[in-house]
Amino acid sequence: MTASTRDALAQVPGVASERDAATRDFVFNHTMLRVKDARASLDFYTRVLGFTLVRKVDFAEAKFSLFFLVLVDDDSDIPDDDAGRKQWLARQRGVLELTHNHGTEDQDGPVYHDGNSDPRGFGHLCVSVPDVVVACARFETLGVDFQKRLTDGRMRSLAFIKDPDGYWVEIIQPTPLD
Amino acid sequence: MTASTRDALAQVPGVASERDAATRDFVFNHTMLRVKDARASLDFYTRVLGFTLVRKVDFAEAKFSLFFLVLVDDDSDIPDDDAGRKQWLARQRGVLELTHNHGTEDQDGPVYHDGNSDPRGFGHLCVSVPDVVVACARFETLGVDFQKRLTDGRMRSLAFIKDPDGYWVEIIQPTPLD
Repeated sequence: MTASTRDALAQVPGVASERDAATRDFVFNHTMLRVKDARASLDFYTRVLGFTLVRKVDFAEAKFSLFFLVLVDDDSDIPDDDAGRKQWLARQRGVLELTHNHGTEDQDGPVYHDGNSDPRGFGHLCVSVPDVVVACARFETLGVDFQKRLTDGRMRSLAFIKDPDGYWVEIIQPTPLD
Repeated sequence: MTASTRDALAQVPGVASERDAATRDFVFNHTMLRVKDARASLDFYTRVLGFTLVRKVDFAEAKFSLFFLVLVDDDSDIPDDDAGRKQWLARQRGVLELTHNHGTEDQDGPVYHDGNSDPRGFGHLCVSVPDVVVACARFETLGVDFQKRLTDGRMRSLAFIKDPDGYWVEIIQPTPLD
């Protein structure tokens, strides 16, 4: 049964009766996705969605690089030094970590699995926008691939676009559509 | 090359030269994972990691339920009504959405793919904690499965635990280990 009040949610099977004080200051910090072509993914997440690249860490011997991005309107409080950035990043909610294994960008076709066909698992990321109609019109102009346009299917208030690896990014707005 | 200053990061191939004003107020809202057994997953994310269940939405005809969780120390500003909760949620960073397809909990063995064996894609979630040694000792006491203990491998400052579906959850702390 849909639960939407504080009391009803507390009764959902599995939900802890109270929060363990040992989890205080825990932060759901990031989600990591592997990407085939770092340049294409950075272009998508920074230019199309407005993310800021906060750190890039290379592991030359193991042949991979990590990219940490955040989506914030004001990046002026991000420290300038790497140690400061690392600590700042670890205290943020909603960081996106992209892992690039060097050389995958030269392979033919898709390299990674989006999780939405067998074997399924991961489903999608979601970006909330002030106006989903305006945002989707801009994505069309930019040539972004859609998995589901606003006009597709029954849920007319949300869309799914695809990042360069085919990972789905849901687009919603907080308020009901007019 | 590792890039860690504002100027060096701006030069990384693919990074947009400036942020498009059209992306203002965009929020990286959530990550969605499918879970086999909602009760087991809610227990893990609320009791072990301290998440709060903010909404549960059932789709009886399509036979699935969605669970939206946040990890916040103060949940007193979460509205009590469902419409308010929905709007509040959509403005948050770092929401975890779990999708439960009804009946999967009765299947034998794992139902979903964690993304870390072929076909790879999604990698992990990450929770930042004030003290990674203390947090991992508590996880051991609670009988949580580990993918990588602090003492495994070369990276002694981070661990990976596994949620009930086997999805990896990295555990880090913001400051360097003593």
